[in-house]
This record gives sequence, C-alpha cells and structure tokens, in this order.
Amino acid sequence: MLVLITYDVNTETASGKKRLRKVAKECQNYGQRVQNSVFECIMDNAKTKVVKAKLLEIIDMDKDSLRFYYLGNAYKNKVEHYGTKTSIDLEETLII
Amino acid sequence: MLVLITYDVNTETASGKKRLRKVAKECQNYGQRVQNSVFECIMDNAKTKVVKAKLLEIIDMDKDSLRFYYLGNAYKNKVEHYGTKTSIDLEETLII
Repeated sequence: MLVLITYDVNTETASGKKRLRKVAKECQNYGQRVQNSVFECIMDNAKTKVVKAKLLEIIDMDKDSLRFYYLGNAYKNKVEHYGTKTSIDLEETLII
Repeated sequence: MLVLITYDVNTETASGKKRLRKVAKECQNYGQRVQNSVFECIMDNAKTKVVKAKLLEIIDMDKDSLRFYYLGNAYKNKVEHYGTKTSIDLEETLII
C-alpha cells in the first residue's frame, strides 16, 4: 500500500534541526521524497509499524507534527503532481 | 471527498516568497492547514477543479511543486496524526 508521511519539525533550536535531519534520513530508508517534508512509501502493515515506531522515537511530540495517510493499493489514480520534481534539500541547507 | 494538497514553493527569490504566501492563502480558503505546506480540504470534484486551476495559476511550474492526493469519502481511518497541532506560520515569518 501507499503510505504518505508528512512532517513539520520545529527547527528553532539546534536539537530541532537534528531531529529534522534524522526524520528525513529515516524516511529516505523507506520511501521516495516527493517534497521537502513529504515522502511516499510503498509498505505493508509490518513495515509501516516499524517506520512509525522509529519516527515517533525521533520527533518531539510537543514541538513537531507527524502525519500518515494511507492510500491503499489502488493509489495510482489518487495522486497528481504539477511542477518541478526536484526540491531544495532543506536539511542540507540547515547543516550549512 | 478529502483532498490533500501539499506544496513546495521555491522561496529563494522575493517572487517565490510571494507565490508561497499566495498558495497558502488560496488553500486556506478551501481547507484546513494541518502542517506548514499541507492542507486537508473537503471538496467535491467541481470545487477541486476550481482550486486546482487557481493554484496552477500561482505556482511557477519550473520552480515549485504541487501535489494532490485523493483520499475519497471514507477517509477518517486513513489519516493518523502525532505530535503538535500547531505549526509555525512560515509565510508570516517570511513577511518579516
């Protein structure tokens, strides 16, 4: 199934910037980055459980936001894209 | 139906910042902001067509990215949220 992972990590502090990098890195292990804070992951329930647990360990529940959208198996006609496919890598920018 | 709108607007230039503000403002007319660049809109096909046309007029197809996810009517168990519900208003920050 297609699982969409979207996040907002509060990067006002150094630890926030670190969390953002960690979340993005973790998501990259499981899916395709389609926007700066949006990943599309093709996963079964077991894998979804694993990535969810990992991300919940990283984020600060009081400062960050993490959302999962379950688009099922027949997802091909449920997604539309317009514009550029490349995005600025915010984490890389933040490291500098 | 639930339509998820996600976007990345390239804000390297002043015109990019302007586009970002416009996109967010337009989305706010149609749905609920759940993250900085993620909106959830309950809309029918006709309304979706309208908002899509408006957003496509605003964005720069060579620099920005706009995605629509169609989650249908039975969307309640397809969405999961963790963490904070409030997010920093990036557009407001950018205006300053």
